[in-house]
Amino acid sequence: MTELKNDTFLRALLRQPVEYTPVWMMRQAGRYLPEYREVRGQAGDFLSLCKNTELACEVTLQPLRRYALDAAILFSDILTIPDAMGLGLYFEPGEGPKFRKPVSDEDAVDNLAVVDTEKDLPYVLDAVTAIRRELNGSVPLIGFSGSPWTLATYMIEGGSTREFKKSKDWLYNRPAAMHRLLDKLALSVAGYLNGQIRAGAQVVQIFDTWGGVLSDRAYREFSLAYMKRIVDNLIPESEGRRVPVILFTKGGGHWLEDIAGTGCSAIGVDWTTGVGDARRRVGDRVALQGNMDPAVLRATPEVIEREVQHILGDFGAGSGHVFNLGHGITPDIDPDRVRVFVDAVHKNSEKYH
Amino acid sequence: MTELKNDTFLRALLRQPVEYTPVWMMRQAGRYLPEYREVRGQAGDFLSLCKNTELACEVTLQPLRRYALDAAILFSDILTIPDAMGLGLYFEPGEGPKFRKPVSDEDAVDNLAVVDTEKDLPYVLDAVTAIRRELNGSVPLIGFSGSPWTLATYMIEGGSTREFKKSKDWLYNRPAAMHRLLDKLALSVAGYLNGQIRAGAQVVQIFDTWGGVLSDRAYREFSLAYMKRIVDNLIPESEGRRVPVILFTKGGGHWLEDIAGTGCSAIGVDWTTGVGDARRRVGDRVALQGNMDPAVLRATPEVIEREVQHILGDFGAGSGHVFNLGHGITPDIDPDRVRVFVDAVHKNSEKYH
Repeated sequence: MTELKNDTFLRALLRQPVEYTPVWMMRQAGRYLPEYREVRGQAGDFLSLCKNTELACEVTLQPLRRYALDAAILFSDILTIPDAMGLGLYFEPGEGPKFRKPVSDEDAVDNLAVVDTEKDLPYVLDAVTAIRRELNGSVPLIGFSGSPWTLATYMIEGGSTREFKKSKDWLYNRPAAMHRLLDKLALSVAGYLNGQIRAGAQVVQIFDTWGGVLSDRAYREFSLAYMKRIVDNLIPESEGRRVPVILFTKGGGHWLEDIAGTGCSAIGVDWTTGVGDARRRVGDRVALQGNMDPAVLRATPEVIEREVQHILGDFGAGSGHVFNLGHGITPDIDPDRVRVFVDAVHKNSEKYH
Repeated sequence: MTELKNDTFLRALLRQPVEYTPVWMMRQAGRYLPEYREVRGQAGDFLSLCKNTELACEVTLQPLRRYALDAAILFSDILTIPDAMGLGLYFEPGEGPKFRKPVSDEDAVDNLAVVDTEKDLPYVLDAVTAIRRELNGSVPLIGFSGSPWTLATYMIEGGSTREFKKSKDWLYNRPAAMHRLLDKLALSVAGYLNGQIRAGAQVVQIFDTWGGVLSDRAYREFSLAYMKRIVDNLIPESEGRRVPVILFTKGGGHWLEDIAGTGCSAIGVDWTTGVGDARRRVGDRVALQGNMDPAVLRATPEVIEREVQHILGDFGAGSGHVFNLGHGITPDIDPDRVRVFVDAVHKNSEKYH
């Protein structure tokens, strides 16, 4: 493998000294970029884009050609695992993801097989390999997965939901069946992330998009416990370097101490949690990633720079901070504002290091 | 005024000794009750129901006839204030609230007048008076308002939103205009709650439904600061008793210490914040209200009782806890499950007092 030219992101995740605060954006390869929309048009639907090695590689690299980002992230979807389990993922234009065969009863859980990544999801590993080759050591590549709880909600609901009626029905009335499902998902996710690491991912992130809808007790039992099992079972080192693990529970600011207790390297925080407070609570144990409100990217360049300065100042001096948005960038953002954001992080953070 | 027969709720809010943990439910007068749906059908639309003193009084009392609730809450809507400001509130069947004349520019802010409750919202005061008379001292009556930030989002967006694009645009790009709007709303809300207290409300709650979508900094500046101003300007005592103030920011579990710093009597917490953790953080300063996940009411009686037991045990021994849901009860709940819930709180809490 080629030597890594910019390892600032990896060092920040391990709380080692850096020259400036590294930055990347959730959903940085996305619809706000005209060149993404063009490739997406060629590919047909979203899932076809994920499964096309060449095009998935291309869209992964697009934001890095425009901006001085310190990391690339595999272009894929969190629902590849349920799709590989046979649920039949599809996307209706203008709607969220859907499954042709949602998990409707306990028999359906027992009939699910743990995913064998090499056999069932070769296109993801091919994309990782291709992206690493194209990156040519410029910045590290992040692999990712959805959390078991987050995947389970889509599998049970059959798609997106705001109310989580069915998944909470399982959780409260059929907890044993829910645990069997989460168990299969945790094994699948661990194998999936290890496959990505073997193929070349240098960092992995688990997106627990829906952990924040759970009660305090249910979060620990049905989401966090399974993320901990995954962390415990990941390949710790690859290519002679530690492989940092980032856990991101949206709306999980209450649980930072518990998340840090999983043994992860870093915690992603959304914009509702101050990074200064978060650092006081857990900053001696893990790095923090976040957390500008994505809505700020709709503001003027002056406001964007001021918000970046506030967050950098709130975290304060020293390593252990990876700048990011508190959630994914939205399709309506002007690409020029993204440059303002990325450059503001670099320019204003040097004095803290 | 008639003497209050059951003041358990008031005592718990002031952290005075009680015999059991009092309980009420957000949206307890609501669509899950067939008798509510019948009255609602008579009234026509939702707003007509709010404005009809007799019917608003009737639906307020309905849940108290069925369940051993320890408080009544005025039946009204949080958007009465913007409606009184001339924005033209209406409800489309199957959709959320809407305004005919949303606040579209800065001139519109400057043209808004602070609400004079006696003159502009007499129907609310009439409802409070009527409900107090009908309650006849059985349990205390809660008055309420939306928070300035929450009201501002509806006024600027013109209705419900998931993204808060316009309100965040104002917040980030036109903060001075946003502050002028919030200032008028804070004055209006303080006058509105004082009017309700004078008419007979014995407790008031501010619903900050959308504070939790703000960044840490923005929450303090654009939501909490205005709730503090309101708290500072409320009538502290009425009928020889302290009037407790409850602040409820949904998704506000990060900010408990700051919310306690407003001088409120109690903090409402949603189900994502453990009441035990919350008590350790602020329980020597304020009471706590909450926080069962409303989804639990769809579970079996056994599961409901077990969840109630967990929350009571999490709070632990002593006063300062008002049991509630972490958010409003949803229309699909079986009324029999509500009885299980209310009775479980009473039965299982005696041993903690």
